[in-house]
Amino acid sequence: MPSRVVSASEIESLAIGAWILGTGGGGSPYYALLNMRRHYEAGARVTLIDAAELADDDLVAVVSNMGAPLVGQERLTDSATIARAVTMMEEYLGRSFRAVMSVEIGGGNAVQPFMAAAVLGKPVVDADAMGRAFPEAQMTSFAIHDLPMSPLTLADVRDNGVIVQRAASWKWMERLSRTACVAVGSIAGTCKAPRTGREVKDCAILGTTTKAIRLGEAVQAARRAHRDPVQAVIDAEGGLLLFGGKIQDVSRRTTEGFLRGRAVLEGLDDWKAHRFELAFQNEFAVGWLDGEPRVMTPDLICVMDAMSGEAIGTETLRYGQRVRVVALPAPPVLMTPKGLEHVGPRAFGYDLDFRSVFAGSGAPVRG
Amino acid sequence: MPSRVVSASEIESLAIGAWILGTGGGGSPYYALLNMRRHYEAGARVTLIDAAELADDDLVAVVSNMGAPLVGQERLTDSATIARAVTMMEEYLGRSFRAVMSVEIGGGNAVQPFMAAAVLGKPVVDADAMGRAFPEAQMTSFAIHDLPMSPLTLADVRDNGVIVQRAASWKWMERLSRTACVAVGSIAGTCKAPRTGREVKDCAILGTTTKAIRLGEAVQAARRAHRDPVQAVIDAEGGLLLFGGKIQDVSRRTTEGFLRGRAVLEGLDDWKAHRFELAFQNEFAVGWLDGEPRVMTPDLICVMDAMSGEAIGTETLRYGQRVRVVALPAPPVLMTPKGLEHVGPRAFGYDLDFRSVFAGSGAPVRG
Repeated sequence: MPSRVVSASEIESLAIGAWILGTGGGGSPYYALLNMRRHYEAGARVTLIDAAELADDDLVAVVSNMGAPLVGQERLTDSATIARAVTMMEEYLGRSFRAVMSVEIGGGNAVQPFMAAAVLGKPVVDADAMGRAFPEAQMTSFAIHDLPMSPLTLADVRDNGVIVQRAASWKWMERLSRTACVAVGSIAGTCKAPRTGREVKDCAILGTTTKAIRLGEAVQAARRAHRDPVQAVIDAEGGLLLFGGKIQDVSRRTTEGFLRGRAVLEGLDDWKAHRFELAFQNEFAVGWLDGEPRVMTPDLICVMDAMSGEAIGTETLRYGQRVRVVALPAPPVLMTPKGLEHVGPRAFGYDLDFRSVFAGSGAPVRG
Repeated sequence: MPSRVVSASEIESLAIGAWILGTGGGGSPYYALLNMRRHYEAGARVTLIDAAELADDDLVAVVSNMGAPLVGQERLTDSATIARAVTMMEEYLGRSFRAVMSVEIGGGNAVQPFMAAAVLGKPVVDADAMGRAFPEAQMTSFAIHDLPMSPLTLADVRDNGVIVQRAASWKWMERLSRTACVAVGSIAGTCKAPRTGREVKDCAILGTTTKAIRLGEAVQAARRAHRDPVQAVIDAEGGLLLFGGKIQDVSRRTTEGFLRGRAVLEGLDDWKAHRFELAFQNEFAVGWLDGEPRVMTPDLICVMDAMSGEAIGTETLRYGQRVRVVALPAPPVLMTPKGLEHVGPRAFGYDLDFRSVFAGSGAPVRG
């Protein structure tokens, strides 16, 4: 697809679709969306380009609003912070970026490159490095491909700027950037290690911005037609309905720069007398049906409002919500042996061998 | 004094004198000294220059081994790490340093610029920014003079490098660099904000390297002549003997990148039936005689072995040591109202108005 201007309505759809792909994390896109509405009202327009349009030696800024999602509900995001992380990196490198892309297409982080792009007048690349959201730096397709992890720039809302110039490993990059993020209040604008056009073409997960927009549009179309928006998501993405119920209990703590916790769902309708439990670290990591592991990372575990199909983040889960739990397929790179080292259940501390909920299920199953 | 090569024996004296001026902190100079012995055995020689020899627009690297002194007893210091912090800064600035200096003349940090200098072939400036040791970044004469606090580079023994590119305040610089330091294990080589020759001449505390060498020589001369080395320190620096006794109790914890704690001394000889208590955060901050505040920061509170005059650090205090507590006068800039905001007792959380132990004492009092 040639480069094209993204419309205001596509950005609305992006926010809806990305929130679903966020699998509970990536931060609510709502405040990012408010920023974009304002930019568009002021006349800004952001261009989306395919990775194929990048020259091999172009440089791409990979951005994210890093931190604990719950904090993002209180310290509001703004475009200046994420743009500053990008210009910090340009100043550090002494080179200009050709374009901006998201490290994760999930949640508000799908919109962050648009915010930076609106301020800086650069295009956004139709790609990300997770195909969803994940909590840690080494959980990217770039890390799985063993690309360099540094430098990283981090900017906050005051006037603090930190550069992780070099990291001994991806885990060290995660640790150093996370502690800096925690020090400034567990939320910060970051520009990850710069990527060349060649690296983006070879190692990013391509087309995910468009995918998120289309997913959002599917939800909106279902709502307009009074069809089931959750079913529309399942149809659009080849998903699997895992559970329907009411949130009975949520425990949540903001710790080490993450939002960690568990949620218990009491079954309703077809799932009456069943119980589903979800564990999360920013994103949903594992789901148990009646005590047995039913779905696990990197399969996408999406919790949506049963009526509206609106995604529910780990920071906005609350008692009494009627929800559907849906699994969506993960990008293939995440399910390779190397990918599972980075993002499989053991990478989150669960002593489970990864088994995709889609394995052996044949065609996607309708709920 | 013109520039001159520092002899191996002067470096031995520097280690002794600086350990006394460290007021319990700055880290034991022993491992730094071992590094320097090796450099000198290998033929390296370091030149000491007066600040007056700097051109106004020369750049000076201000270095320190940052962290909790107790950790420095286990993770040994090496010249490559501190040199790397300096070259990181040169690469970041795109400019070369004319010389290296210490942020604090206390403890091992008096020797760190010599270690960097031996590796990098640069001279050391006869100056520091504290005239002693202090635990935090904003406790320098540069901060008291409101000079810029960034950038700062931090290197560890692995291959991690962090740049605090910008800080909203000195306190933020302390917080950001401290958390990075804690993340890499509570010890790291750092190069603080670069200083121009003009800034060093106007805002550093001058001549302190020579002062530390002379102080060490005074102790060594007293030992050779079987005179009291503690008295030699008092004579050399116009000090005041505050207490003599035995260490009865030490509580110590490594927390938030600092070594914090208290020590209780039971009086001996002239001080029999009296009790002295010391509180420290890396360095001794306040001393109480029989429950009443007797001496407080920024006056230098030095604890020395009663026989050898060897300084005792907050990390090497232990039960049963026979010690003398001596106060030495602080550099005048630390006792100005602005100085006391940065390094007075309230800056350490003590609700005390600063009163120098030398105020109204007339001529220095002999013990």
